[in-house]
Amino acid sequence: MCGVVGVFCRDENLTSRLAFFSLYSLQHRGQESAGIAVFGDYIHIHKGMGLVSEVFDEKKLNEMRGNIAVGHVRYSTTGESRIENAQPLLVKTKSGALAIAHNGNLVNYQSLREELENGGAVFITDSDTEVIAKLISKQLLNGDVVSALKSVSQMLSGSYTLVMAINDTLIGYRDPLGFKPLIVGEGDFGYVIASESCAIDAVGARVLRDVEPGEAVVIREGEMEFVRVERSDRKALCVFEYIYFARPDSIIDGISVYDVRQKIGRILARESPVEADMVSPVPDSGTTSAIGFSKESGIEYLEALIKNRYVGRTFILPNQSVRELSVKIKMNAVKSNVDGKRVVLIDDSIVRGTTSRKIVDMVRNAGAKEVHFRVGSPPIISPCYFGIDMSTREELIASSKSVEEIREEINADSLAYLSLDGLVEAVGMKKEDLCLACLTADYPVDVSEAAGCRRC
Amino acid sequence: MCGVVGVFCRDENLTSRLAFFSLYSLQHRGQESAGIAVFGDYIHIHKGMGLVSEVFDEKKLNEMRGNIAVGHVRYSTTGESRIENAQPLLVKTKSGALAIAHNGNLVNYQSLREELENGGAVFITDSDTEVIAKLISKQLLNGDVVSALKSVSQMLSGSYTLVMAINDTLIGYRDPLGFKPLIVGEGDFGYVIASESCAIDAVGARVLRDVEPGEAVVIREGEMEFVRVERSDRKALCVFEYIYFARPDSIIDGISVYDVRQKIGRILARESPVEADMVSPVPDSGTTSAIGFSKESGIEYLEALIKNRYVGRTFILPNQSVRELSVKIKMNAVKSNVDGKRVVLIDDSIVRGTTSRKIVDMVRNAGAKEVHFRVGSPPIISPCYFGIDMSTREELIASSKSVEEIREEINADSLAYLSLDGLVEAVGMKKEDLCLACLTADYPVDVSEAAGCRRC
Amino acid sequence: MCGVVGVFCRDENLTSRLAFFSLYSLQHRGQESAGIAVFGDYIHIHKGMGLVSEVFDEKKLNEMRGNIAVGHVRYSTTGESRIENAQPLLVKTKSGALAIAHNGNLVNYQSLREELENGGAVFITDSDTEVIAKLISKQLLNGDVVSALKSVSQMLSGSYTLVMAINDTLIGYRDPLGFKPLIVGEGDFGYVIASESCAIDAVGARVLRDVEPGEAVVIREGEMEFVRVERSDRKALCVFEYIYFARPDSIIDGISVYDVRQKIGRILARESPVEADMVSPVPDSGTTSAIGFSKESGIEYLEALIKNRYVGRTFILPNQSVRELSVKIKMNAVKSNVDGKRVVLIDDSIVRGTTSRKIVDMVRNAGAKEVHFRVGSPPIISPCYFGIDMSTREELIASSKSVEEIREEINADSLAYLSLDGLVEAVGMKKEDLCLACLTADYPVDVSEAAGCRRC
Amino acid sequence: MCGVVGVFCRDENLTSRLAFFSLYSLQHRGQESAGIAVFGDYIHIHKGMGLVSEVFDEKKLNEMRGNIAVGHVRYSTTGESRIENAQPLLVKTKSGALAIAHNGNLVNYQSLREELENGGAVFITDSDTEVIAKLISKQLLNGDVVSALKSVSQMLSGSYTLVMAINDTLIGYRDPLGFKPLIVGEGDFGYVIASESCAIDAVGARVLRDVEPGEAVVIREGEMEFVRVERSDRKALCVFEYIYFARPDSIIDGISVYDVRQKIGRILARESPVEADMVSPVPDSGTTSAIGFSKESGIEYLEALIKNRYVGRTFILPNQSVRELSVKIKMNAVKSNVDGKRVVLIDDSIVRGTTSRKIVDMVRNAGAKEVHFRVGSPPIISPCYFGIDMSTREELIASSKSVEEIREEINADSLAYLSLDGLVEAVGMKKEDLCLACLTADYPVDVSEAAGCRRC
Repeated sequence: MCGVVGVFCRDENLTSRLAFFSLYSLQHRGQESAGIAVFGDYIHIHKGMGLVSEVFDEKKLNEMRGNIAVGHVRYSTTGESRIENAQPLLVKTKSGALAIAHNGNLVNYQSLREELENGGAVFITDSDTEVIAKLISKQLLNGDVVSALKSVSQMLSGSYTLVMAINDTLIGYRDPLGFKPLIVGEGDFGYVIASESCAIDAVGARVLRDVEPGEAVVIREGEMEFVRVERSDRKALCVFEYIYFARPDSIIDGISVYDVRQKIGRILARESPVEADMVSPVPDSGTTSAIGFSKESGIEYLEALIKNRYVGRTFILPNQSVRELSVKIKMNAVKSNVDGKRVVLIDDSIVRGTTSRKIVDMVRNAGAKEVHFRVGSPPIISPCYFGIDMSTREELIASSKSVEEIREEINADSLAYLSLDGLVEAVGMKKEDLCLACLTADYPVDVSEAAGCRRC
Repeated sequence: MCGVVGVFCRDENLTSRLAFFSLYSLQHRGQESAGIAVFGDYIHIHKGMGLVSEVFDEKKLNEMRGNIAVGHVRYSTTGESRIENAQPLLVKTKSGALAIAHNGNLVNYQSLREELENGGAVFITDSDTEVIAKLISKQLLNGDVVSALKSVSQMLSGSYTLVMAINDTLIGYRDPLGFKPLIVGEGDFGYVIASESCAIDAVGARVLRDVEPGEAVVIREGEMEFVRVERSDRKALCVFEYIYFARPDSIIDGISVYDVRQKIGRILARESPVEADMVSPVPDSGTTSAIGFSKESGIEYLEALIKNRYVGRTFILPNQSVRELSVKIKMNAVKSNVDGKRVVLIDDSIVRGTTSRKIVDMVRNAGAKEVHFRVGSPPIISPCYFGIDMSTREELIASSKSVEEIREEINADSLAYLSLDGLVEAVGMKKEDLCLACLTADYPVDVSEAAGCRRC
Repeated sequence: MCGVVGVFCRDENLTSRLAFFSLYSLQHRGQESAGIAVFGDYIHIHKGMGLVSEVFDEKKLNEMRGNIAVGHVRYSTTGESRIENAQPLLVKTKSGALAIAHNGNLVNYQSLREELENGGAVFITDSDTEVIAKLISKQLLNGDVVSALKSVSQMLSGSYTLVMAINDTLIGYRDPLGFKPLIVGEGDFGYVIASESCAIDAVGARVLRDVEPGEAVVIREGEMEFVRVERSDRKALCVFEYIYFARPDSIIDGISVYDVRQKIGRILARESPVEADMVSPVPDSGTTSAIGFSKESGIEYLEALIKNRYVGRTFILPNQSVRELSVKIKMNAVKSNVDGKRVVLIDDSIVRGTTSRKIVDMVRNAGAKEVHFRVGSPPIISPCYFGIDMSTREELIASSKSVEEIREEINADSLAYLSLDGLVEAVGMKKEDLCLACLTADYPVDVSEAAGCRRC
Repeated sequence: MCGVVGVFCRDENLTSRLAFFSLYSLQHRGQESAGIAVFGDYIHIHKGMGLVSEVFDEKKLNEMRGNIAVGHVRYSTTGESRIENAQPLLVKTKSGALAIAHNGNLVNYQSLREELENGGAVFITDSDTEVIAKLISKQLLNGDVVSALKSVSQMLSGSYTLVMAINDTLIGYRDPLGFKPLIVGEGDFGYVIASESCAIDAVGARVLRDVEPGEAVVIREGEMEFVRVERSDRKALCVFEYIYFARPDSIIDGISVYDVRQKIGRILARESPVEADMVSPVPDSGTTSAIGFSKESGIEYLEALIKNRYVGRTFILPNQSVRELSVKIKMNAVKSNVDGKRVVLIDDSIVRGTTSRKIVDMVRNAGAKEVHFRVGSPPIISPCYFGIDMSTREELIASSKSVEEIREEINADSLAYLSLDGLVEAVGMKKEDLCLACLTADYPVDVSEAAGCRRC
């Protein structure tokens, strides 16, 4: 998971600021590191660990002058988080400077890297982004950026939504299967390319349209054009963008994320009804689906749990004797709401089950008579090789346990997941256009090489 | 606005950690500075600017060993935020060490300070807390802490909820009018005193009861007792704890904050009904009241606005040319929800009106046909001298404009405030027991001296 | 050990900067913390842990506008170094604001504090400076600052060189025995008061004269006058200012520090001659005396040891297996200089002897045939209660061992200390005017109360 | 200017610490950034801006476990100091991981880079070190490290002393002309390679011998061997190592730096005698030569100037009105030493002349009757292209002015430089074995390409 943005702005003093604000609105897509490269008379690049607002300040933004910017936020996928992995990656090539921001993951990274190393290439990072940068640079020796993208697309396998600056040109590109989203907006200042439409709203621009799978958007000297680079028989849009990743106010490939999540709640209520006095989200992930569930079922919407809005990324761990407080720090039950009630809790997924158990217990201890758990997605049974960190979702409870076993584990009175068909119905897209691999173990491309190697 | 906690814990290694977690859950009461003093073989004190989780780390907490802790979080009331003002204040007296954490504001601070200075006292800080510390210290020369509190209560005017450690004793005290809340909990480890019940939940303890106005709770050698220090004919419980300050999962003076806010929404719906297609909170302040409004009115609950969960305290200001983005950074309209709809927005209050205007415009620009604004409190017309920062609420729009003028200013199709009677009904307390001064300009004590001098 | 400065400057924009530069030149007197208070329309105070150049920056200095400044650098006397102990101490009194910077140590601190506490005073710090501040504040209720200093001088026992600002007045004061130095300079900008003359040079001013023991210098509305506050039969000027503390370019009480140190080397050469091929300082403490020793003895001056100029205050400790490197990190022998030579090493003192041993061994291992050690002061046999940290000099080797035993311990071929008479001759002052207590155990005032309580 | 070290240590827990201490002793060779790579089960690399002691702490060193370490300190050659330029550079190649630390500068960097770019290579940094890394990596595809170094040596022109780790092998290499020094030591723990012998002393090891120009030292599985890689007809040892860069306790190519500097002073006294009362160094750069000058001339050695030992890298600039204080902050005249005297000042070089002027004036103002200036090197008239930063020495006063003009500019009564022959005599090496280009404009290799491009 990562977020990418590109900005073309006619006022060179405004560019870095617009990149900042659009990245800021994509912060949910990655909190490990942030970076912006601005191409002007001079190429400015600044990257750092932490939130966008921690990495940049007024002074830094003011220094970064130019008409083109590329930005990136990175999700912490492993314990080892290092500044070397922060993006955009800036390389100097025969054809000029190239800044590249990447959302996705190659599944043939190892063999591509070996091939390059056999030709004498040396690598500074361990990221597949450096492989992409080197391949594009090579192709740029023989042609323009669109033909380079065409050639490279035939070599790469996996997911790769890219935003790049090459000299005076800003390019957005979405791989032929379109795993990860990319959308273009236009404002008075110029153009913005971003992972999600909320980043276009954030800079006061209006959405033009999504970049289609296999399509590039090229902005040069103030002119924008969409160029078809590659075609594919099918699409493989990541369904988890709708379930979990994207911000609810974003519209991805023409479909409102908020709408999908509310429908998920409605369908869940139809598929797995329950007699209860109140329905509550697990905050914040279940909020929209819980509203939908309440409307469909007629069960009163009432918050069973309140989240501490000041929980940061780093916090003191309760030691041995107060280990049970670890969830209490983050949220608390509203006793006056749940006391004596039959409560339905809605969450977007169950990962290891340990947190769900603590939440169920907390609601019970606050006086709930019954606690029913409803999950807004089918069980996750298989790893993702296209950029979603399953290191936290790795010991997936659903890959080894039945629903009844999980229910027992989390101590719920009842448990139900959304059906695969229900999910597809909520999204409202053809099943063949979605990547559902983590739910079905049916991968849209060959992933045999990638097993041991997952990266943003 | 500040938050205070006190912890007595039989395990001296756990005390600082419990103080940390309880303060952490009171973070909403103050984000400027945080501090904890622990009394053990040695007196440890650590204070710093910023959030609880920024000020403390594992190493620091491990060093602070002892059975008694006093903690404080401070709200930024002025531009001048300084470490010198962080609490607890630790002083050394003839009677031993005294750590004091204060929530409230004296209205006769100036005259008390002058009197002390005339006696040769020197002051290190500009805070009324140092005045309280000096007065208590003086009285401790002549008697125990309860008699000292009795004497001092007769001198002090204003609001002063205190948590103090004196040598081996932990004391909580609430001024005779009880402006600010204080509550006591018991856990397996010992006792906890805190501004709100959510801090008791946070450390896995159970609520015993609120400290009453004019009452002290004294914990010494593991024994806890409530002691009546002072009596008053009336109470003056701050109504804004229910409207805005307290966490919705807290129960204050026996009344659920969540419950009050939901009732506010219901009463608002009855008092000021409107034909509309959806009701939405201004997040997060209007959430609970909007749910109540939806239930009472039957109008569908749907979020018109999504908040960026990563907005920190410091952020880059949009410069001149992008000034209009300042609210967009914090929240965004959900186009698919509001498009073509008549929308009711619920917020807890209107301060200057500028933010409300931007929000109304944002919802209109996203396609709303009509935007109606409902406010969960009566108009604020008069400053608070008891500890609520009105520097941000100072240029109160309601003190100089009529409701119709405000409606025009914020560009809403209709605007209505909750009535004073509606508010009192929602709280469910006798009107005489509440401090409603900021809504009525009728102050429970003489505030003539305090006009130019407000402090936490 | 601390350094103090006071600045009166007619240009209010320059004052903080002049205080900064003069403090900067006194950095050798204290590296733990630094602070400056500037009195202008507003009272600015800024203090921090670390070096002057770490605590202050351009922005901070520019903010601090006014005509009077008081500055302080503090030496780390204990492991517990805390910002609370940083000076100047700023207190608000009936008579106005008082900023006070103190160099010295009271020997009747405990009884003075108890007396104040019995009167109801509370203390924020554990420093004797707060006692002084409270006593002065009390006396200011009854008279002007000179009469206050007179009264307070009769209460205080010990060393106390003070620089203070009270409203529009800058005052320097030196206790009646004059333990610690204080000197006044005049520049085009106004006046500067400082611990040493090098601070007057640093701001381009010229020395007027030393403040005499029992004398105050008072600067108000641009007028400077010296006022006799108290008289004493004797003086007690700290001899270690000449031996070790002061910068060699300073002139204290009319005597050049460089001169004294060179004479120490000459007298040492006469008192304890030795056949040798070269004489070398232990850098940097022995440099000036080694030059004197070389001149008197005719033995060639050649550096046996080179210091690493980048050794900072904090550094990685060699672990168990490389413990012997601890001195090598700081200095290294010059093999080509010492190989096959009889070497005389000159240092200003021997404390515990462990470092001296490592240095002697290092010079031997680099090829020296003989290593003779000469010390530029008599053996330190008794603790100082007047402000010199003996916590590092505490386990004084000379208090329990004979010179021959020490020689054996440090593995030198010969060892000699300067005689007490030689030291007095080098300084060129009457013996009765010096404090030689640490060398003779004969204290100029009663120190019985102070045994357990030493502070800057 | 940079410093490089390599450590092979049999105890994997000690390696990083030994690298740290040896780098620490080379801090004078570069204060901009520091870095260490340790090769163990895992490859650890840590780099940062600032001093060695600021970049590393106990925790970091403890984490870095392995038997081989490569370290680097970097000198700030340009205003733009960036973490990206910090070394060692770590690259991943077909043949394994390669960490490389470089002291020197290529003069054919541009053409080498272009050639690589034409082959499709992309560059992450702007440093010639990346060029070297890529060329070596390419050659490693065809042979071992020694044959790779042989091939690469035939491509590279300029100065390049390298310390590298490749998998389990530690290599030191000095270019065929041997511009920059490299020396090998052996300790109980294993081996250490470093820029100067003081780094070998610092870890308690003994010097084995210098690495000769064109020679490599290879350490693998605990075995060390010297391997001749390349031969050259001549050498070009940088003479400024003796004059200025190296620490005086180092022995470079068999010659004691201290010795050379003392001889410089003696020869200067013979070449340019002067009637005077005292000779003094400009501290610290002129100290050793001043001692030599005093001995040869018989003029008394006495310090005219004392340096503030706490001057850090960053400090507050005196503003307009106190601009003249800029040198006073760093050093001060000792009035009692210079008053009424004829003073000879010795410095190692004159760059722009502005500082020398301020120093001469300071000594005059302190009372000196005459001030004579003697410089321990011939005039610098031409830029260095082999790694010495002339950006600070760029506006070289000697490149445009006669000695008499410079004397006038710095306001000295007389001025003399060391002769070129005198310098060669002081070093005691054949003239043809030295690089004297900056003094003669006669470069040992063709530098036509390098004019616009100098780098460490």
